[in-house]
This record gives sequence, structure tokens and C-alpha cells, in this order.
Amino acid sequence: MKDVIRAKRDGGALSRDAIGGWIRGVADGSIPDYESAALLMAVTIRGMDKDETVALTDAMLHSGRVLAWNGIGRPTVDKHSTGGVGDKISIALAPWVAACGAAVPMIVGRGLGHTGGTRDKLEAIPGFKTNLNADEFAAQTRRIGVVIAGQSEDLAPADGKLYALRDVTATVESRPLIVASILSKKLAAGASGILFDVKCGGGAIMRTKEEALALGKELVETARELGRNARALVTAMDQPLGLTIGNSNETAEALAVLRGEGPPDVVALTRVLASAMLVLCGVARERHEADARLDTALESGSALQRAEAMIQAQGGDPRVTVDSSILPRAKQETKVTSDRRGFVSAIDARALGMLLVSMGGGRETKEQEIDHAVGVRLIRKVGDVVTAGETVAVIEAHRDAPDWAETVNQAYRIEDAPPLAQPLIVDAGGR
Amino acid sequence: MKDVIRAKRDGGALSRDAIGGWIRGVADGSIPDYESAALLMAVTIRGMDKDETVALTDAMLHSGRVLAWNGIGRPTVDKHSTGGVGDKISIALAPWVAACGAAVPMIVGRGLGHTGGTRDKLEAIPGFKTNLNADEFAAQTRRIGVVIAGQSEDLAPADGKLYALRDVTATVESRPLIVASILSKKLAAGASGILFDVKCGGGAIMRTKEEALALGKELVETARELGRNARALVTAMDQPLGLTIGNSNETAEALAVLRGEGPPDVVALTRVLASAMLVLCGVARERHEADARLDTALESGSALQRAEAMIQAQGGDPRVTVDSSILPRAKQETKVTSDRRGFVSAIDARALGMLLVSMGGGRETKEQEIDHAVGVRLIRKVGDVVTAGETVAVIEAHRDAPDWAETVNQAYRIEDAPPLAQPLIVDAGGR
Repeated sequence: MKDVIRAKRDGGALSRDAIGGWIRGVADGSIPDYESAALLMAVTIRGMDKDETVALTDAMLHSGRVLAWNGIGRPTVDKHSTGGVGDKISIALAPWVAACGAAVPMIVGRGLGHTGGTRDKLEAIPGFKTNLNADEFAAQTRRIGVVIAGQSEDLAPADGKLYALRDVTATVESRPLIVASILSKKLAAGASGILFDVKCGGGAIMRTKEEALALGKELVETARELGRNARALVTAMDQPLGLTIGNSNETAEALAVLRGEGPPDVVALTRVLASAMLVLCGVARERHEADARLDTALESGSALQRAEAMIQAQGGDPRVTVDSSILPRAKQETKVTSDRRGFVSAIDARALGMLLVSMGGGRETKEQEIDHAVGVRLIRKVGDVVTAGETVAVIEAHRDAPDWAETVNQAYRIEDAPPLAQPLIVDAGGR
Repeated sequence: MKDVIRAKRDGGALSRDAIGGWIRGVADGSIPDYESAALLMAVTIRGMDKDETVALTDAMLHSGRVLAWNGIGRPTVDKHSTGGVGDKISIALAPWVAACGAAVPMIVGRGLGHTGGTRDKLEAIPGFKTNLNADEFAAQTRRIGVVIAGQSEDLAPADGKLYALRDVTATVESRPLIVASILSKKLAAGASGILFDVKCGGGAIMRTKEEALALGKELVETARELGRNARALVTAMDQPLGLTIGNSNETAEALAVLRGEGPPDVVALTRVLASAMLVLCGVARERHEADARLDTALESGSALQRAEAMIQAQGGDPRVTVDSSILPRAKQETKVTSDRRGFVSAIDARALGMLLVSMGGGRETKEQEIDHAVGVRLIRKVGDVVTAGETVAVIEAHRDAPDWAETVNQAYRIEDAPPLAQPLIVDAGGR
């Protein structure tokens, strides 16, 4: 192990065997944390080339059980978002794609820091269970074609251990480590196609388009090296996605998409991603065919029914798909008003994400419990006209919250001139 | 701590407070090893500037007790060698300098890998005790002006903990970490002047003169920043020093210097270093005055008496100074002969150092016990003429050892032309 650490310290490339030995040692606990910590830091500073990243991903993927979908009778496809504020896309996306003929075995994470997590959002639904074991996960996928659950302990266990160590050793930001962490979980869930939604902008981990494109490219190339079909889109994460931030309210907003009632940006992004997934896994030959299938599933109600089936299968109350009032919601509303007349030119997604953490709706450490009921409703978004004194957002909390309202007010930038329109899809990726 | 690790990971300089907090946490055990391991790796790759190195040394030095020599009535001075093969200089040097009017409170280490350690060599003397506590160490210094002992647990304890971690995380080679480790122990022992003998060549850690000069400069500057008088010499470590390698035989050879019987290079280096120490601590105003004092101490027998007093004070048999037969010596001799006629042009010190480890006279891991009785006597050294079949060295072991003799034979390079004379003192350092 010392030779492996030394080689990476000096900028060398590690062999597949060296990487495999490390990850096996991490998984079985035979390699002490201090050795892994030193190696993680050397990797973070020195980097890893493509072969090393592939070997690392492969080793982490095989540190536990790898699901296989042979005999399921339809293509499997999954989506991963690198995380943003207000990103509730998966909740409607997965059943919608399943309703079109694909199987979607989706592993999702919890929120950490300013970004929310699909797992937390779904748990806002009374009774909804996300801690399925691999057998339950597989059985539900085979039965109703869709599942959204947390990472079970037997899938890519080395990733969980390494992630905990990265978190305390300032080695979270390393790109090869990010790639291997994302992919090992997704690949272990076994979908043959994976679509990456790489977020870019002030509310995302990747701030610039260049960084996002580079991460997307690396995710796609590594997934393909490991025998999966993959594509990456880069999408905007400057202002929050949709009109809600929080857990209950975001779940409600996502489900509204399946009733044809979602806000335009959420509907648009869900459709673009769903369409790309259907093409990626071969259910549709090209985008227009995929779009037609999506329309049919929406209009026939089969997408909504698939969401109900999924929620029921995971112990949740399926009425939530048509009645969001069964979700816990904080009762006290505090209005945020505009100080001036003009156009909303920016809404600081990161600031609002951190505000949700302060309000108890997000977490700063992994162990923290969160409050699904609190959140923020955005009445005005970028490009909207506002007058002085007009309500731009509403805080939903358990108390009157002028302090939080002030934070939201600061997050809104209002200017005289209308802002330039920014595309939601920054880069659509190749095939 | 995570912010500190991140700052160094990104190549930033750490504040005195950040470094102080880290080292306090290392000393009291509140900072987990994996955090220190990540930081050590970041320091190894990114380096530390002068202020950081000073702050790190200062923090490590103050992680335990710092000895003070007020009221001792004579200047205190110490020497540190970066380590080589056959380097037994301290054994004669310390009592000799003490006999000239300085006090020498010397902390020494054990051998590791191809380099030997003074502590092991002295322990070859029956009864000699090197594990003194700080009070015993101080009392002996005050009483007879000289002590050579191991690092007690209350001196620079953070160094011992960090060194153990560096050893298993491939972060031993970092120059700021080497400087802080060497200096923190030496400065904690409290001598006001410290002479550095920085070894350079194939048998040393620093292979080139440039590396050795840079390390010497950094040691001297850091020691001076922390209020000590310091100077560094760079000396040759290509062939082994003296005519012996081993523990008993090296101790015997060193003590012979005090009887005027040492081999020329050992005598010369001991004198040069002793003279520099006397000038450094102000016992002599300049080199010639120092040399005269050294001559007097040697001729009067007071240097030898000081060695006897030291050995007796530390529980050893003082007769060893005049009768080396009381040292344990392996009885079986195997001659190493020259294959050809010519001049000895090189003797591979590193190869002979590793041979001693194989023979049991050195150690590869810190926990290993060593055999003081085994060793190698060098009959011929670089520049000597040899004929074919002539004995160039003798193995002293517990068995007939043709295999080890072959290793020694390989370590000797014999050529037709006489080698260029190489200076023993590569750089004498400024004042």
C-alpha cells in the first residue's frame, strides 16, 4: 500500500491491480483509514487518467452486489443529476419513462449542504419507504417497472466508506473520485443506459459550462468503458428549478407534472430528460418518437398511474398524486416583497438552498434529521416584471420569519432592464 | 481541520494558528490519524514555506517538555547527522567536546534501513542505558557535561506520533517534515548551538550536494528563527565512514579516536565537527583555538576520561574505552577477496548498510531487535591498491558467510586507474 501511495504522490499512474487491491481493502476494512486518506489526497492533487478512473469505478462497483436485469423483457435506463436547488425532476421522470415501456431502477441520494436530495423529497409522502434492500429493489422493478430508493448497503459498499472519508479529508472535489462515486452506485443498480444531467451554474457543484462539460464527458466515457450506454446533458442551475424549494412542496410540484400542471421549466426539463432516456435505451428510435410516447403516457393517465403504483409499492399514500394536501406543510406564511420596480434578473439558488438548511429543510451533516414541511414558494422568477411592494416569494415555516424573508429578498436581484434569456439546456450532449 | 487540509491541498500557506492547532491535536490525540494523513500528503506534495516550517517546528518542539540549561555555567551545544553508513562520530565527539568546556546534551536515534543509529551502537556496551527520562538526562548533563540518550517520551511527543504516521503513508521524504522532525527533538533538548552534519552521496538520504546544501540551509535558518545558534556542514557519504560497519565494532572504532588510534577519516571528521561545535558555542573564538583545545583534551586523556564518566553514568562498563574485547563480537570470520589487481575506486555504502540489515545488525522495521555482534571490517578503502586474491574486507558473523562475502565483493569497485581524490568535507558551511 505504501508503494501505491508513493507512486500516486509522485504523479504516477496506478495499475488496475493496485487500485483493485486498495478498494478490496477499503471494502473489507483491512486497509486503515489513514492510508486511504493519504492516497485520496494524492489522487485529489495529482489526478487520475482515464484508465485509472475506469479501474477505480470498476473496483468500487464490484465491491458489492451488482444487479442484473436479464429476463425483465424491457430495456433498463436510469438518470443521475449532479444536484441543484429545486431539482425534483426524478419524481415524475422515473414513472413517466416507465409508463413508456422502459424499466427504471433508480438509486437516489439524500440532500447535503445547499442541494436537496430526491430521497428526502419522496420521504415527505406519508409512509413512503426508501430503504429497500437489493431484493426488494429488484422485485419492484420487475413487477411495476419503476423504483426510486436509497443506496442499499450491499450495492457499492466501498463507495459509502470512501465517501465518508473524503468528506472529512477535503478530498470531495476530486473529479476522478466524483466520477467513480457517482458511477459505481449507478452501475451497481444495473441499468444498461444512464443519462447524466450535469448541472452548471451558481447553484451547482460545477460552476462553469466548461467544468460541467468535462465532468459529463468523463462520466459518459467511463460508463461506456464499463459496457453501459450513456449520454450527458448540461443544464442550467443558476436560479432554482421550478417554483418551490423544500421537500413536501417539491414533491407536490413534481407530481403536478404528471397531471399536466407543472411549472414550465420543470415540465420542459422533465420532458427533455425523459425523451433522451427513451432514445438512449432504444424504446424510441429518435426524439420525436420519444416525445410522442411521452405525450400519450401523459394524456392517457398511464404516467400518473405508474407514479401511484410506485408510491403504493413503496408504502406511500398514492392519493398524493392527485391530492398534495396530504403532504406535511408548514402553516405560517411570510411574504417576501420587492423593494423596487423592475425585472427579476437573478435568483441566487445557492443562497436559497442554504436558507432551506437553516430552516431545517436540509442538512449540513449526514446525520441530521430534516423537516419536510418547511420551504419557500417562488412567485416570481428570472425575467418576470415586479412592482415595488409586490410579493416575489413566500416562506412556509412554523413561525413568522422576517429574518428568512430578508435572506430571500437579498437572493433576488431586480434591475431596470430585462435580463438576457438563458437556455435551460446548456448542452444537449451527443449520442 | 478540513479547512486547513483544503488550504494546503490547494497549495496555500497555513497560518501559525492552523499549524499550532494541528500539532496540539496530534499530541493530545484529538485529531484522527486520517485527517493528519491527508494533511501530511498535501504538505508532501505542495511543500511549506519558511514561515510554515518554522511554525511547524515550533509547534512540535512545544508539544512536550523543553529543557532549559540556565545556571549550568557553560555553553550547551549539540550535533545532528542526517545519517549514513559507518557514522559513529557522535560517540567520541560528544565527550571530547565536553572535555573542552562545553555541555553536550545529545538526543540520538536508532538505525532504520541502511543507516545505523548511535543509540544502537552505544547499546552494544554491556549495561549501557539509553532510555533516560528528561530528569535523568538533565541531571547527567549538569553533573558531567555530556549525555547521549534516546528521545524520551516527554520531549517533542508530536514528532514521534507524526513520524509513525509518515512512515506508513509515504510522506517521510518531505523536506519541511524532515526539518521539523529533526529540529523539534534537538531544540527540545535545549542546546543553544546545533551543528548539522548533512551527509551527501550514495549512502545518504540526500544523494546530491545541491540537495544536501538545501537541507542544511533550511535546518540552519529554521533553528536560527527559533533563537538557536546553528551551522551546517555537508560531508561525504559515498563509501562507508571508517573501517567498520556494525554496532560493537563501530563503538570500538569511535572510542579508539579518543586514544589517538582511530582511522584517518573518522579522526578527521570527528575533529572538524568538534572544532566547529566549540566555535559555534563560543568556547573557542576560532578554529585554531578550538583545535588547540581539542589537542590538549586528547593528549591529557581528559576526553577519554569524559567518555568513561559518561559510560559509567549511563550504566555501561567504562573499561570499554580501553578494552574493546568486552563488546560482543561474532566469532566466525569470512574473508572477502579481490577478483583482480587495481585501485579501489568505490565502495557502495548503501549496499553494505543493507547487508548489515540482512545480517541482523540493522533493522527494516522499528520494532526489530538487532544483533550488536555482527558486522563488516573494511581492510581496503577507496584509493587503496589491491592485488588479485587479496583480502579487502572481513565479515564478522555467527556462521561462515560466502553469500554475504559475495555481496561485499560486489560493493567494491576496482579499476586500473587510481580514483580522483574526493574531499571528506564537501562544504564547510558559513558561520
